[in-house]
Amino acid sequence: MPGSVCTKDIQKNINGSISTASSSPAIILTELQPLMANPDLPPECENSQEDKREVDTVQQRSSNVRACRTRFLKAISYFSGDMKVFGKWMEKQFFLLQLLDWVLRGAAQVMFVNNPLSGLIIFAGLILQNYWWALNGFVGTLFATISALVLQQNRGSIAAGLYGYNGILVGLLMAVFSNKGDWYWWILLPNIFMSMMCPIVSSAIASINSRWDLPVFTLPFNILVCLHMAATGHYNHYFPQVLIQPRSELANITWAEIDVAKLFMSVPVGVGQVYGCDNPWTGGIFIVSLFISSPITCAHAVLGSAVGMVSGLALAAPFGDIYFGLWGYNCVLACIAVGGMFYALTWQVHLLAITCAFFCAYLSSAIANIMSTFGLPSCTWPFCLSALTFLLLTTETKKIYKLPLAKVNYPEKNLAYFWKMKKQEKMEKAEKERKENKEQRKALDEAVILNEKEQLRLLELERSEGNKATSKESEAENDKTQFEDYTPEQQRTEEEHNNNDLTEVTRVN
Amino acid sequence: MPGSVCTKDIQKNINGSISTASSSPAIILTELQPLMANPDLPPECENSQEDKREVDTVQQRSSNVRACRTRFLKAISYFSGDMKVFGKWMEKQFFLLQLLDWVLRGAAQVMFVNNPLSGLIIFAGLILQNYWWALNGFVGTLFATISALVLQQNRGSIAAGLYGYNGILVGLLMAVFSNKGDWYWWILLPNIFMSMMCPIVSSAIASINSRWDLPVFTLPFNILVCLHMAATGHYNHYFPQVLIQPRSELANITWAEIDVAKLFMSVPVGVGQVYGCDNPWTGGIFIVSLFISSPITCAHAVLGSAVGMVSGLALAAPFGDIYFGLWGYNCVLACIAVGGMFYALTWQVHLLAITCAFFCAYLSSAIANIMSTFGLPSCTWPFCLSALTFLLLTTETKKIYKLPLAKVNYPEKNLAYFWKMKKQEKMEKAEKERKENKEQRKALDEAVILNEKEQLRLLELERSEGNKATSKESEAENDKTQFEDYTPEQQRTEEEHNNNDLTEVTRVN
Amino acid sequence: MPGSVCTKDIQKNINGSISTASSSPAIILTELQPLMANPDLPPECENSQEDKREVDTVQQRSSNVRACRTRFLKAISYFSGDMKVFGKWMEKQFFLLQLLDWVLRGAAQVMFVNNPLSGLIIFAGLILQNYWWALNGFVGTLFATISALVLQQNRGSIAAGLYGYNGILVGLLMAVFSNKGDWYWWILLPNIFMSMMCPIVSSAIASINSRWDLPVFTLPFNILVCLHMAATGHYNHYFPQVLIQPRSELANITWAEIDVAKLFMSVPVGVGQVYGCDNPWTGGIFIVSLFISSPITCAHAVLGSAVGMVSGLALAAPFGDIYFGLWGYNCVLACIAVGGMFYALTWQVHLLAITCAFFCAYLSSAIANIMSTFGLPSCTWPFCLSALTFLLLTTETKKIYKLPLAKVNYPEKNLAYFWKMKKQEKMEKAEKERKENKEQRKALDEAVILNEKEQLRLLELERSEGNKATSKESEAENDKTQFEDYTPEQQRTEEEHNNNDLTEVTRVN
Repeated sequence: MPGSVCTKDIQKNINGSISTASSSPAIILTELQPLMANPDLPPECENSQEDKREVDTVQQRSSNVRACRTRFLKAISYFSGDMKVFGKWMEKQFFLLQLLDWVLRGAAQVMFVNNPLSGLIIFAGLILQNYWWALNGFVGTLFATISALVLQQNRGSIAAGLYGYNGILVGLLMAVFSNKGDWYWWILLPNIFMSMMCPIVSSAIASINSRWDLPVFTLPFNILVCLHMAATGHYNHYFPQVLIQPRSELANITWAEIDVAKLFMSVPVGVGQVYGCDNPWTGGIFIVSLFISSPITCAHAVLGSAVGMVSGLALAAPFGDIYFGLWGYNCVLACIAVGGMFYALTWQVHLLAITCAFFCAYLSSAIANIMSTFGLPSCTWPFCLSALTFLLLTTETKKIYKLPLAKVNYPEKNLAYFWKMKKQEKMEKAEKERKENKEQRKALDEAVILNEKEQLRLLELERSEGNKATSKESEAENDKTQFEDYTPEQQRTEEEHNNNDLTEVTRVN
Repeated sequence: MPGSVCTKDIQKNINGSISTASSSPAIILTELQPLMANPDLPPECENSQEDKREVDTVQQRSSNVRACRTRFLKAISYFSGDMKVFGKWMEKQFFLLQLLDWVLRGAAQVMFVNNPLSGLIIFAGLILQNYWWALNGFVGTLFATISALVLQQNRGSIAAGLYGYNGILVGLLMAVFSNKGDWYWWILLPNIFMSMMCPIVSSAIASINSRWDLPVFTLPFNILVCLHMAATGHYNHYFPQVLIQPRSELANITWAEIDVAKLFMSVPVGVGQVYGCDNPWTGGIFIVSLFISSPITCAHAVLGSAVGMVSGLALAAPFGDIYFGLWGYNCVLACIAVGGMFYALTWQVHLLAITCAFFCAYLSSAIANIMSTFGLPSCTWPFCLSALTFLLLTTETKKIYKLPLAKVNYPEKNLAYFWKMKKQEKMEKAEKERKENKEQRKALDEAVILNEKEQLRLLELERSEGNKATSKESEAENDKTQFEDYTPEQQRTEEEHNNNDLTEVTRVN
Repeated sequence: MPGSVCTKDIQKNINGSISTASSSPAIILTELQPLMANPDLPPECENSQEDKREVDTVQQRSSNVRACRTRFLKAISYFSGDMKVFGKWMEKQFFLLQLLDWVLRGAAQVMFVNNPLSGLIIFAGLILQNYWWALNGFVGTLFATISALVLQQNRGSIAAGLYGYNGILVGLLMAVFSNKGDWYWWILLPNIFMSMMCPIVSSAIASINSRWDLPVFTLPFNILVCLHMAATGHYNHYFPQVLIQPRSELANITWAEIDVAKLFMSVPVGVGQVYGCDNPWTGGIFIVSLFISSPITCAHAVLGSAVGMVSGLALAAPFGDIYFGLWGYNCVLACIAVGGMFYALTWQVHLLAITCAFFCAYLSSAIANIMSTFGLPSCTWPFCLSALTFLLLTTETKKIYKLPLAKVNYPEKNLAYFWKMKKQEKMEKAEKERKENKEQRKALDEAVILNEKEQLRLLELERSEGNKATSKESEAENDKTQFEDYTPEQQRTEEEHNNNDLTEVTRVN
């Protein structure tokens, strides 16, 4: 039966088209697995079946290169990004080892990096800065994570280090701002208490922020460190804090005295100040740890620090503050958060991130001045407030796309998700257009067929009517009117028929 | 046929009642078009067709008067209220002209007035006060509007000036509080930056406030000006701010020294201080600009300023502050916002507005004292906080009706909307009651009919039993009941018919 | 018919199980009526019908004891808990008497106690402390309640005193912090104004907090008293406030000088400081008033005060502050709120309450230091913020159960509600398991039947094939299987029947 064969062929074709259609999500899935997958790779893979027929030596060589590249990317994906494979392997390990993984991820999550290797490097940087601070940071992260476990918080969040990063900051900064100097062991007591309060405050703020699909950022850290410092203050017997006082006279700013080397150094120092470290090498190590996980994050961190430095100069800040990185660290975080982390990175979002960094610099100066009245440091309040403001922004442009909080990963993955979404939308649109075109063509074809049928019928009528020798003119006229009369009627019904078919088709689709 | 005549009469009556019933929505519609249409006008117009038959010279004269009045009201509507016609005409104009319209509306939106003419008068008042301030205000409004366009905010909101009013305040107040005096051109740089931040902060706050259907008020202005002032402070090389210090001794208040003229002058000065102007003539010009757009707004502005002045006296404020209008401007805004702008104006709401003004005066003193610790002015924080508090109020009375944010216009239009709603409710209630009454009557009628039918049957039985001995009395009675029996039946169907007509009419309306 | 008898027996059994199953909700209902019903009482009552048959003198005596106890508990329930019966009786009384009831309940609601007797005792304690303060407190409660009535707030809430407790605190604390001393009658003016603002601020905050199902706590009081104090300040002619200044030197803490008696006294003083009273006897009276209404509340109040005292010692607070109860009162409220009032009391929640008290102590020190910069006291801000934080906490454990706000009563009733819920859940779970087991058994039985039917068919086939040569053994086997076949079938239908009955019963329950 030829008919059945034909049907089979169609089926085959359809299957072909299905396979190509269905292949694209698969492509995207594979795109997502390696960290920095270059998006022009998979389309080539797709057409590989057709290409096979025209195999030549040139292609074979290029395919070897490609294979090497893929293997290289895969190797990179093992220790960059969020180290998913490692995380899954960890799930089957000994509990203390898991806890260490969570603590390391927590240390890196301060910079929105979910990567234990980055965390390890960050701890190395901290040790380079100050043993005692590093110890306090570790204790803070550890007890914050343990407290989250005790309070039965979400396991996935704990494993991603999302309950640890406030702990490390609390631990570090309580040590940094203590007026008793290093190795004052009593400080560990409030350190542990405050670290264990982190998950409670985090959970409470998340309850509020989740209504607007906003993250908690470092708000728990800000609240708890300010709480500790305000509760004890500079004049305290047990836990005195460093004395912070509001500015009460004009700072001495002589442009001739500016030290350009120190000014450039302030960029890595600004990154280091995220963890309260003023050693430029420590800052450099932190930049490396960011690069390992996500180059986009790293670039925005450096950019943010530079923006902060420029803002400091523009607002007549004392050079000492700028060199010390105080103008940078909030901008670093704000620039990372807006530039690719919670928004999908486009040029518009990149500009928005720079604007946010400038706004954050302004805000950090304002908040530092206000909080100095209470003898408090500005912590990362400026970053939290500016980033939250920019995340609450709503526009009517599609170029500024805020990712749903549940879909947030590292910038590269976010970008892949955004592109996938855009491709799907485009494909759906193209599919729709193609169908519409097809339908139009079909309608046209049918109209043509109808015309031809009409003509056929007319000829038949002529033959049957002009059978007995009637006057040709009158009859011709008659026929013409009849023809005119009949045509639209018939057309209409047939069109209706087509219409019904169409609606059925669309319903099926 | 008397029956048909009767029916016609009823129909006529019904039509009459329908026309009056249906006319009320029409009245409101016409009411809405001119600004201060007096609601007793249209009903007279409506019956003009019937009146024509009884034309006399008296009426003709009155109709002339009426026509004049209508024309006058229409003329007023062209430049009062929100100048809708002008706004629509503007849509077809050159872009720069449109932008000017938006800027002018933005200037007036500080007082909740969406009217370019008011904006123009306000700019005139500002120029009268200080050229430099007026320039800064204009730059601020312009760049805030441009920034909103760049960020693709809602076009309708931009056209209503809702992205400009924070800009004008930011521009003005940054110039007012600058310690470098007038014509210090560098101030334009932070001015432009902060103005362009306005739409971002507005959008962010709107995201939060919209959850409670609250407006953003002047919160972005408050945040951004405080941000600029706190970031730079009094001790800054480039952008120093005026020195504001907390009170540290008893103010000298001698009631004998009070200057009553200055006290009365403080009312327009208070209105002027909304834009940071201490010139009473400027304040007077602002009052005029308010009156043009909405007399209710104007009345509440003056009332609010007076309440602020009285509160200042009651709380032992230094006379200088009261004369300077510092006690008035927040109360002006709070009184306008609650008194007719976001609530429909009733006597209860009017009292609430006065309470809010008192509360706002208290709050402005408290906030001024607190913010002076940081060297900051109180801006319009007191207004924002008090108005938001009063808008969050929920009661079980219908007399205090908060308009949905999307329906908020100027107080007169809000009132018309509220009355329309109330009338509709009443009508629906009356309609419902009438129907219920009818149904009850119907039920009663049917009960009567049933009774009578029973009696008829009994009579028939009697007749059939005593067939030959009929008494005249019983027959007469029987006829009577038959007649009575028929009438209500007929009435009912006719009523039903009318009923249907009525419901159809109301549906159409 | 033996079958029917059998069915009846089963029915009987089912009814038996029904009665025990249905009795548990009834138990809980009776449990709820008396305040401190001991839950082991009702199960004994339940079996009273069966027990009656085996009546003996021992039991009669014990039943007498039980009756006495029940009567005693009922008598207690009349004046403990929320005095529901009294409240209902009040509804039919004279308006002024009702108002007095609401005012008394309002006075007690500061401690989350909805009991007019406690309120009366609290007023007694206040009078013991200071006549003038007590008067101010009464005026505050009265006008706050009246204002709520005028603003047409929810009647149930007014009757529960929920609009009065902020008023009493406003009235009391405005008198306490006034620098003009006692019997300065002008203070009543701002007192009345601020009290009447209470319901407005309460309603506004409730609009926000209700989104997270949170209570308003004493936020309106905090806002309004801080508002009044900041608005007037220490340097005011009419309403000067006591001078509060930030600490600017090390406090003198010599452990040798510690007075242990005063330290222990600080526990009741801390409870008294909730109402601003430093008299330990007043604090003791307050503790008694709490015990009357709810022993759990009372225990947590004392515990909270002790935690606060310990925290003060741990954070090197001046002994004077600790003796004065300043470290206790916030912890008292926080401990009550978390420990059984808004969470159902379990061991985990008890530990959470103690953690919250520690956190609150820390917070109260921090807030006191910060607010002293503005010359303001810390009021109960620390309690509000810490309790709100702990109420926003979300965990994945069922042991920490936050009651829906509408179901919150006194801790004992909350606990009964929680137990009831848990029992219902358990019952439902058990029921579900039983059904699943039954279904599994049914499925098994059916599988057996099917197997046997198969065998039968095979045998029949054998028979029809070898029709004439039948062996006795095979027939015997056949009969046996038939018998076995029938039994489970019948069983199944009966089980199904029972099943249906059961589900009907549970539906009814």
